[in-house]
Amino acid sequence: MFSHRAQVHRVFHALGDPTRRAIVERLSTGAVSVSSLAKPLDISVAAVVQHLQVLERSGLVRTTKVGRVRTCRIEPGGLTIAERWIEERRSQWERRLDRLGALLESEET
Amino acid sequence: MFSHRAQVHRVFHALGDPTRRAIVERLSTGAVSVSSLAKPLDISVAAVVQHLQVLERSGLVRTTKVGRVRTCRIEPGGLTIAERWIEERRSQWERRLDRLGALLESEET
Repeated sequence: MFSHRAQVHRVFHALGDPTRRAIVERLSTGAVSVSSLAKPLDISVAAVVQHLQVLERSGLVRTTKVGRVRTCRIEPGGLTIAERWIEERRSQWERRLDRLGALLESEET
Repeated sequence: MFSHRAQVHRVFHALGDPTRRAIVERLSTGAVSVSSLAKPLDISVAAVVQHLQVLERSGLVRTTKVGRVRTCRIEPGGLTIAERWIEERRSQWERRLDRLGALLESEET
């Protein structure tokens, strides 16, 4: 349980930063090298590397190094963790609404 | 477009904090007052109020005051914004995989 909470935390912490979301947005359209990731974001390669470490730990991004080039890819598992947390909240909230609706109906009859 | 980006930012910034996620988790199971929100979280009412302001601005939570009691409720619109952002990333990524698959097939024939 703790480990799942920790995973959820890492994913939402990672997505809480606009630069890291921009990286995830970019990588959704295809794999790129670290340096070509840095250019349009207008930040240093060192800063990108730091953000990538947070994204890798959260399971949102995977990087592989071939020779001197490190390539970054989206890792769908991280997105799934965030999606499930949101779905759980929504379904709890909807069940609650259903119960309230049933209660109101039973009071009317 | 800017306004949508700003909304996405407010939602993910709000969800990036573990206390604010705990508030959203609690509110998914039903509406509560600010003071009963503070107790199990073991933080001051003042701290809860600050977190609630961030959550209200993001559209994840709505609060209403009757007399001296402020009641907090989940607002599903905020969750929808986060869900859609994630879905867009996933569908971009899947379309990219489909194109790669088609490319590989056409090269094999």
